[in-house]
Amino acid sequence: MSWTISADLIPGLARGAAVLGTGGGGDPYIGGLLAAQALRLHGDVTVVSLQEVPDDALVLTVAMMGAPTVMVEKLPSLDEVIAPVHALSASLGRAVTHIACAEVGGVNSTIPIAAAAALGLPLVDGDGMGRAFPELQMVLPTLYGINASPLAFSDEKGNVGVLNTVSNGWTERIARVACVEMGCSVMISGFAMSGSQAREALVADSLSLSYEIGSGIEAAREAKTDPVAETVRLLGGREFFAGKIVDVHRATTTGFARGRARITADDATLELLFQNENLIAEIDGHPVVTTPDLIIVLEHDSGEPITTEGLRYGQRVRVISAPSDERWHSAEALDMVGPGYFGYDTAAYRFDGSVEAVESSGESAA
Amino acid sequence: MSWTISADLIPGLARGAAVLGTGGGGDPYIGGLLAAQALRLHGDVTVVSLQEVPDDALVLTVAMMGAPTVMVEKLPSLDEVIAPVHALSASLGRAVTHIACAEVGGVNSTIPIAAAAALGLPLVDGDGMGRAFPELQMVLPTLYGINASPLAFSDEKGNVGVLNTVSNGWTERIARVACVEMGCSVMISGFAMSGSQAREALVADSLSLSYEIGSGIEAAREAKTDPVAETVRLLGGREFFAGKIVDVHRATTTGFARGRARITADDATLELLFQNENLIAEIDGHPVVTTPDLIIVLEHDSGEPITTEGLRYGQRVRVISAPSDERWHSAEALDMVGPGYFGYDTAAYRFDGSVEAVESSGESAA
Repeated sequence: MSWTISADLIPGLARGAAVLGTGGGGDPYIGGLLAAQALRLHGDVTVVSLQEVPDDALVLTVAMMGAPTVMVEKLPSLDEVIAPVHALSASLGRAVTHIACAEVGGVNSTIPIAAAAALGLPLVDGDGMGRAFPELQMVLPTLYGINASPLAFSDEKGNVGVLNTVSNGWTERIARVACVEMGCSVMISGFAMSGSQAREALVADSLSLSYEIGSGIEAAREAKTDPVAETVRLLGGREFFAGKIVDVHRATTTGFARGRARITADDATLELLFQNENLIAEIDGHPVVTTPDLIIVLEHDSGEPITTEGLRYGQRVRVISAPSDERWHSAEALDMVGPGYFGYDTAAYRFDGSVEAVESSGESAA
Repeated sequence: MSWTISADLIPGLARGAAVLGTGGGGDPYIGGLLAAQALRLHGDVTVVSLQEVPDDALVLTVAMMGAPTVMVEKLPSLDEVIAPVHALSASLGRAVTHIACAEVGGVNSTIPIAAAAALGLPLVDGDGMGRAFPELQMVLPTLYGINASPLAFSDEKGNVGVLNTVSNGWTERIARVACVEMGCSVMISGFAMSGSQAREALVADSLSLSYEIGSGIEAAREAKTDPVAETVRLLGGREFFAGKIVDVHRATTTGFARGRARITADDATLELLFQNENLIAEIDGHPVVTTPDLIIVLEHDSGEPITTEGLRYGQRVRVISAPSDERWHSAEALDMVGPGYFGYDTAAYRFDGSVEAVESSGESAA
């Protein structure tokens, strides 16, 4: 079940990860450059399935934290990518055995590849979300009681910090303000897990799925078939809107890229609300899909995924939705990543347009 | 040259430290309670002179970071006081041998006493400033090239962080935003020094001087002589204003207590500008004493020091100035702690009213 990432797989992997990243995670092309460079310097990376990870493994996630608008402007060096892993390993007093992705998304799927290559470690075929979310506690391991901390963070200047916090929410709060002060983009490593914890808490096979989607888009283009339809098929999702972007508001505040985009068709208008990732899609004022399900914007003809910082006036796009990992639909999970957490006053809508049946635990029926 | 701090010395020590603290460092009475409690629980603390510290000692400073307005509201427990020392010792992989004060000031002179008691370690008779300053890099050790980091910080919830930064300015920046997020007040430990480094970089005998001043004020009151005059004598300073506080503006912003107070006499008005500490004194619009020399506000009759968060409308006060450690008057030091650093467009004035002769290195003559 293990396979090998060589430099020629990077474009497909990065493209597919950007699809699953629902607009977040930064430009897949830029993240791909760093991974390809690492593979050329240090050799290919072995990807192992979650089943193959020994129970007593030490699995760490590696990610870039910050606003994608800033991430793409200051891509880290390989030294910076591995600095938090070394700091965390020293703090734990144990050698790391496996690297994992915290989320699927452009930069945050390719940076762990670069880290695994530079460290000579295998990469786990899985991630903490099966998509991308803006805050670091928003991973399935949090729901399994796995601590984000000790969590290490580092910047391009050489500043490094290690946090030990009382909750994953506090890890996010302290790391976020440090991240903003350090220039709105830092490298982080945390969520130390054993192999058995990783098997339970991560989303399996998400790197494989990323490559399947990314190479599927490429293959559809070459076969002159529809890459968007191929993506919908692979995700088990649906295409629910097509139109032209007529308005984009975006601001980088408190470490996030927040904003909204308006997309018009002949007879309807789609409003897309995002915070690093696409979170809410409303047609003519009515929500149709919301976080935690996936809202993905693809270029109309090429099917190329468009990140939230890549949204531009005049782009012709198609918007698809897809189911998230079913564990994101529990009451506890919806409290953490549902529309209400992000301040949107709406129920959660599934990818097929149905309203979430689960009561939020915060307002459970008496 | 060593002496012992028992609970009965705390009121005098804390009062004298508050005098040297130039308005900063928090309420000496509240800080004194914590130290007295620690001494009762763990026994007296041995104070050793800098000359007695072995060359290969590991000296760490312990302090509370944040706005004094908040510090006095959430005094730490003894467990919280020693948490950053344990975190730092673990990070260094070495046992701490001595505790030192980063600054002289109410809470920040008494918290290290509590830490030394709880840890069973000797306390160094000295500190990093010979006064108090608002930012953590503003200590003489910075001028001697001693790193603030590794620096540990902790809060009352149990969150702990350890920073390794490229400069002491970056330690301040990252620790400050973390401090604000964690509730505007955290315990910190850093500036690991050998005995020989401590001898070179610290201000000697500042705990002894604090006690001498604090008990001198008490003795003068009992002898019905003037405690303010006694303080002026001990500091080699001068009393330059007496009047009534008629206006106080204070705001706790970005982790500091910033503001100004107006004090009027029959024929003149003193404007006092502060950021945690008193930084500038202007009479009728003209600066007369500025940072780095000491500006101290004392209650008119009792000579009790008044901290910046204790300034109140209607108080009758006397204002004295005193020389700071001469090393604060170098060009490099003035760049770090002179009026310009704090955004005041004025030359530095010494305690006797004379203008600093030293050119700032930032604007040296051609």
